[in-house]
Amino acid sequence: MLQRAVEGLTWFVTKILNMEVLVKKHSTSLPPPSPSSSLSSETKDDDDNAYGLSWRLAVEANNVGPWRTVPARCYKHVQSYIMGGQYQNDVQLIADQILAYAFHIPLSSDGFDAWVFDVDDTCISNINFYKAHRFGCDPFDSGKFNEWMMKGACPAIPSVLGLFKKLIERGFKVFLLTGRDKATLGQITTLNLHSQGFVGYHRLILRRGEYKGESASKYKSEKRKEIESEGFRIWGNVGDQWSDLQGFSLGNRVFKLPNPMYFIR
Amino acid sequence: MLQRAVEGLTWFVTKILNMEVLVKKHSTSLPPPSPSSSLSSETKDDDDNAYGLSWRLAVEANNVGPWRTVPARCYKHVQSYIMGGQYQNDVQLIADQILAYAFHIPLSSDGFDAWVFDVDDTCISNINFYKAHRFGCDPFDSGKFNEWMMKGACPAIPSVLGLFKKLIERGFKVFLLTGRDKATLGQITTLNLHSQGFVGYHRLILRRGEYKGESASKYKSEKRKEIESEGFRIWGNVGDQWSDLQGFSLGNRVFKLPNPMYFIR
Repeated sequence: MLQRAVEGLTWFVTKILNMEVLVKKHSTSLPPPSPSSSLSSETKDDDDNAYGLSWRLAVEANNVGPWRTVPARCYKHVQSYIMGGQYQNDVQLIADQILAYAFHIPLSSDGFDAWVFDVDDTCISNINFYKAHRFGCDPFDSGKFNEWMMKGACPAIPSVLGLFKKLIERGFKVFLLTGRDKATLGQITTLNLHSQGFVGYHRLILRRGEYKGESASKYKSEKRKEIESEGFRIWGNVGDQWSDLQGFSLGNRVFKLPNPMYFIR
Repeated sequence: MLQRAVEGLTWFVTKILNMEVLVKKHSTSLPPPSPSSSLSSETKDDDDNAYGLSWRLAVEANNVGPWRTVPARCYKHVQSYIMGGQYQNDVQLIADQILAYAFHIPLSSDGFDAWVFDVDDTCISNINFYKAHRFGCDPFDSGKFNEWMMKGACPAIPSVLGLFKKLIERGFKVFLLTGRDKATLGQITTLNLHSQGFVGYHRLILRRGEYKGESASKYKSEKRKEIESEGFRIWGNVGDQWSDLQGFSLGNRVFKLPNPMYFIR
């Protein structure tokens, strides 16, 4: 009985709502967005999201050549990827993969088992900067980015901080290898890392003057080669840029963290 | 007025619906799935989808070590990725990237500008086989896969077929390089490729007996080295497996097509 009463009332309400639509359709005031235009805007959002997914996958698999800005139609997708939690999920799964690998490595007692991490968007995050620059859709502004780095306010990427600590606990010597300029950014970078919990690493390597203008790939390869020539065995090499993971002296395995916001050669 | 009447009625209907819920809550019959249990099933689906996204991204960026089967909780995600159109979108975007790169290569008139493609799930698709094997969640069955290949029924991957034709038109010599056994699968593979429109390539290289048991990465590197030693310049190398794209004689650029269904070392 109750069910039928509800059905009857629902039918009645639906009828009245339809009448309201008819009244609106025939009014002379400015029409609201029509169902067809809102549908096509939804379709556009779906298309842009599908495109964003494809573009991001292609970037992470290194299929896209050097790129300067995120395509404008990927803005919403990248924003929701970064701010909606999936970026963090993706980093966590990779950190889990790294740990699973690291804990099967037969460590020597000589203290020469090493691990290399990049710094920006590997250990500490620049998302707060990129949030204000349309997640990489705006052209890169090196002046503003320098100002941002000088604040020393990059937060730790939690999954990577956890991984970093576990690798040190396990006995690896951790090297942090960054393209940041030693003269101008050395002190603030050290402070930023320490304040975020990155303590106990073996060495922080910043870019000295003689490597100015060198590609990240070549500069980092040469630094890793130096680490190896000291006798270290690089078991893992972790970065958010393919230029962290290409060249020579790469280490036994490389791990690419996601970064759909910018590209460094 | 009409608006207020609708609001009043809606409120009334809502009240009655709430009463109905209360009545159901206190009835002694078997309860329907409670909102909380249906919510948690939705939450599980969302979690599995998020995990599937992370897992697939990690696979495509080569962060996951050798893996035998797709994790069971990724089944729905991979199924909807492959069957829902996003896989095809992803291949198309990469094909577009390849063409943009290829059309800026300064071709020589000597006829030695070359391109390498893998065959399975690069040129022609095994999706129809994997569909019947839970998209890679089931363990690999080499006997059944051989039976499938012997049918010669793999359809072309449309974006790759288009790319293949344009590269040949542009003047590249295209090499198809596959791990399929020459003795048992040579004839049917040639037929399958031709029937699907893959004609006009320079050479199809199948695995000869002496490479049996060799890793795909090593076998394919050696074959590419032979191509180079004939004087060819490999401008691009396209495959769905990282083992197509690692080792030596890789070519000037490599392109990784998506494949979340299986892993070949």
